[in-house]
Parts: sequence; C-alpha cells; structure tokens
Amino acid sequence: MMTAIDQSEHHAALENARREFRDQLIDADLLVPSGIAGLYGRGAVFEDIIDGIDRVVQRAGSAAHGSGIRRLRFPPVFPRDSFEKTDYIASFPNLTGAISTFEGDNKKHRALLGDRDAGLGWDHHLTPAGTMLVSAACHPSYSGLTGTLAQDGTTMDIYGYCFRHEPAIDPARMQAFRMHEFVRVGTPEQAQQHRDSWVPRGLQVLEDLGLSAAPVAANDPFFGRVGKMLAANQLEESLKTELVVRLYDDLDEGTAVVSCNCHRDHFGVTFDIKTEDGEPAHSACVGFGMERIALAMLRTHGLDVARWPARVVAVLEG
Amino acid sequence: MMTAIDQSEHHAALENARREFRDQLIDADLLVPSGIAGLYGRGAVFEDIIDGIDRVVQRAGSAAHGSGIRRLRFPPVFPRDSFEKTDYIASFPNLTGAISTFEGDNKKHRALLGDRDAGLGWDHHLTPAGTMLVSAACHPSYSGLTGTLAQDGTTMDIYGYCFRHEPAIDPARMQAFRMHEFVRVGTPEQAQQHRDSWVPRGLQVLEDLGLSAAPVAANDPFFGRVGKMLAANQLEESLKTELVVRLYDDLDEGTAVVSCNCHRDHFGVTFDIKTEDGEPAHSACVGFGMERIALAMLRTHGLDVARWPARVVAVLEG
Repeated sequence: MMTAIDQSEHHAALENARREFRDQLIDADLLVPSGIAGLYGRGAVFEDIIDGIDRVVQRAGSAAHGSGIRRLRFPPVFPRDSFEKTDYIASFPNLTGAISTFEGDNKKHRALLGDRDAGLGWDHHLTPAGTMLVSAACHPSYSGLTGTLAQDGTTMDIYGYCFRHEPAIDPARMQAFRMHEFVRVGTPEQAQQHRDSWVPRGLQVLEDLGLSAAPVAANDPFFGRVGKMLAANQLEESLKTELVVRLYDDLDEGTAVVSCNCHRDHFGVTFDIKTEDGEPAHSACVGFGMERIALAMLRTHGLDVARWPARVVAVLEG
Repeated sequence: MMTAIDQSEHHAALENARREFRDQLIDADLLVPSGIAGLYGRGAVFEDIIDGIDRVVQRAGSAAHGSGIRRLRFPPVFPRDSFEKTDYIASFPNLTGAISTFEGDNKKHRALLGDRDAGLGWDHHLTPAGTMLVSAACHPSYSGLTGTLAQDGTTMDIYGYCFRHEPAIDPARMQAFRMHEFVRVGTPEQAQQHRDSWVPRGLQVLEDLGLSAAPVAANDPFFGRVGKMLAANQLEESLKTELVVRLYDDLDEGTAVVSCNCHRDHFGVTFDIKTEDGEPAHSACVGFGMERIALAMLRTHGLDVARWPARVVAVLEG
C-alpha cells in the first residue's frame, strides 16, 4: 500500500509526464498553446491525424449500421431547454458551460465598458443567452425525437465539438474536444445490444490504429455526495464501459479514448421519447474521443508521423 | 420613396420569404430545428454540400498561397484574455457569448438546484469560466503571433465554428456557423494586397459554384452611438468588401456570403505583433461564410441536390 509520501511523489511524476508530453506536442506544432490550460489550436498534421481516424470510425459505423443510419451534425451550442432535459446541471455542474450575452442599451454598455476600463469583471452586465455549450455530442439530438419512434427506433451518427470545464496540464484532458458518436434509441434490448456490440467494435478500431486498448467498467464523474451514489450505481449496473490506452506507462490506469454507454430510459423520459408500444425509449451510445485517440497514436507511434508504421498509415488513408 | 406602410409591408414580405425558405429547408431535412431561432442541426446532404464548398475554397487558397500557408484549426471557445484584445465587447457586445460554469461546493450546488426546482434562473450561481465563444474564426490565431514576425509575415488558413447571438427567422442568420478564413499578417502593403486580391478570387469561387455575386462596400454592425461613427469610418476608408448573393429576390439587398476585410493595425497593436522593422503588424482576412454559401446554392439551384447542374456538382466533387 502506498504511503502519503509515495502518493505525492507518484502524482508529481504523473503530472511531469503529462507536462512533458504536452510540451513535446507544442514543440512539434501538433498543438498550439492558447494561454490557458486545456485549450489548444490544432496544427495541420494533428488535424490530418484526426481526419484519418475519422475515416476509420466512419467505416466501422457503416459496417455496423449500413445506410440506415441518420447522419447529423450539430453546432457546439444548443438550447438551454434541451440542456435542462439532460439533467447535466444536476450531475456535472462543474463541467458545464452556460452562455451569456449583452442585451442592454447604450447607457448600460457604457457601464460595462467603465467596469472593464477599471479592471473589474463585467459579466454581471450580461444576461443568459438561452444557449449552453454541448457537453456530449449526442445531447442536441434528443429534442428532435420527442414523440413516438418508428418501429425500429433510430440510429444516429453524430460528430461535433464538446466542452467540459476542467482545465488540466494533461493534453488528453481538453476543455474543448471532438466526439464522434453512434447513438441508438429504441427498445431496452436495442439500446443494450448497441452498447454491448460496440465494445468489441471499438476495440477493433483501436487495434486497426495500432493501439493497445482494454475495456474497463467505468463511471461518470458525478458531482458531490449524491453523485457518489450515482457513480456507484452506474458501475454496479455495468452501464458504462471505457476503452482505455496507457499514455503514461504505469503512472496511471490509462486514458479512456472510447466510451460505450447505456442510458437506460434517462433521455427517453426527460425528452418524452416513446417506442411504438408507448413505453419510454431507451438509448445507448458509443463515443470516440477523437483528440484522445490522436494523442494515444502520437504516444504509441511517436511524434514524427513520417515514421509511423506503414500498416497504420494505410489504415488512416483508407 | 417608401411610406411607413410600404416599409412595414415590405418587411413582412421579406420575413415571410425567410420563414418559407427556413421551413422548406427543415421539411427537406437539410436543417433540423433546435427549438430556438437561428440554431439548427445539419442533415447529411447539407453537410455534404458544406464539404464540397470547402474543397473549392481550399483549392482557391492553395492556388493563391501555395504550400507556404499555415493551416490551423481552433475549437469554438478561446481564452477571455485573447477575446479582450479583439475589443469585441466594445464594438459588438450584443453578439458576444461569454461562458460561465459552476465552481461551488455541495452546499452551493444544492442552492442552485433549489432555485432550478423552483423554476427560477440559476445563472447567478455560476462564475466566469475564463473562456468566450469565438466570434470570428481568426480571433484565436493572433495571440500566437505576439512578438516579431518573420520577414515575410505569415499567412494562415483557419476554419471553425463562430457564434453570434442574433436569433433570427432568416436561415442565413445563424447563431452558430462556420467560417473558413485566409488571414495575412505582415506589412501594411501585404495586408492591403491580401484584402484586395481576395475580392476577385472570392467572386471566382462563387462563380464556380454557380452563384451570381456582387462586391459591395460594407461595414460591420458596430454597437450603439459610438459604433455609428466606427461604421461610417470603416465604410469611408473602404476596409470591408462583402460579396453578396440575392436569396430573396429584390426584397432585400442581398446576403453577404464572403467578406474581405482589412484590419489595419488593430490586431497588431492589441496583440503586440510587430513586423521585422519594429512597426505594428497590419492584418487582413477573407472569410467564407460556409452555411450562407450552402444556402445560396440551395436557393439558386434548388433544394433537390440530385437536380443541380452537372457543372456545379463536378466542381463540388473536385
């Protein structure tokens, strides 16, 4: 068992490894620093890797679901009303991004600029804009399903930017990142089967990319005391399986790069989505963390893409 | 000259035309309604059009700037510090998107949820998150240039989501949309030349897409009384040229789908970017409004992409 001193040294070693990786990524112009933790511009080579990974993810989606899948793309902001129905503010308030704007007149604008000139904050001059940042790529999709689903339910392909306020040194913990999801909404069996079938499919995608990944029963980082119970429940009911890759050797237990989740009837109830038999729909999704997969590849195959294994390059070029 | 009644009828006819177009786009599953004005999901066909347009834009950029251009991609949020240097809160406060999050403890979270359960607002429980939504695709790029530029300055290719809080019925006025920019930072002559040269290049891109566009001297919608002077000044100095396409016949003066802008030394001064001779750098950009170009094509060639002119389809497929 580790003593407190061991733990502290261990944590310092892990943070050092993360910082070193981040600095290497910046030196290689793969990521561009923004001045705050967890926010980066992406260089051309990094974006090419992301696009290559996406071709592989897209092929896996087509192989699994054929042409019956509905392809949807959402902007990074969505309505407050839909956000409320995800219940995210109850479970993950600390990760949330609420958007406000200025709706006053000339006089109020002068007051805002006066505070700003005096070096004070000016957010109290703003009002809620009716929108929120998207926390998970699938969140904006559910409001369109309110009502009764067609007989076979629906399967959606969704790709977009997500935001989570968790500034960190670890380049794998970004505040803004892309998630490519395949989402199933239908009967309890359809949802569960979707979740289960994407564990081996996700592992195959990662293997094709030359990554060593393992499935791990996981839970979301629910907030606070009540959250601890929700997390224990999620783990116990085996609702979330993450596919993890070790970026920092044995300094931590690995980084989740893909997540396979069964939501049960959570969204079906809050968005009032019903199956043909009038029951609340169940849903499940697999989410590919695009930046994390790219970082895992850079960690595994090296920062110089020109020297990546030919087999991996061929897969990316698909 | 139009009377007040004429104007009112004219405005109603324009709003009707916009609403009708929006409803057609939704019926055709090109756009997916979100429940609030100006925010949409994008259907598969709409995204394919965007990707096709981007191939044409990308080719024009390569033809103009060769391989010397730096390709950068930024997430839709960027640091408050950089936002402050754009001076956007002074000029366009009403379009701004400030991000806040929850940073309290269990007790404060219970208070937030208590207000929420009571049907009250809960934004006053949040604190600024240190980030802002990106208003123009190039804004996050300037902080990385602080210091002295290389001899020839720099040319950047930037593509990303922008946010502007201006809810509207017109589908061409979205709250979240993509802008593909080519940005030049260097001497006053380099910036001016970039701006000027992209007017005919932008017109050629639009002509290749089968659109009838015209260049128009324009100004940004600066806020308030002071803003009126800034706008007049921008117009007088001919700093902004928009390429406009008529979406609603002669009901309005057309929709700007491309914008060619000279910023003079605005960003050079506020981001402390200097040319080799120690002077503040000048900058200029051309921005392609991707959703607006797609909408102009749907308006011009029809909602059924299968019936678009073969010449246009060939250009999109590149």
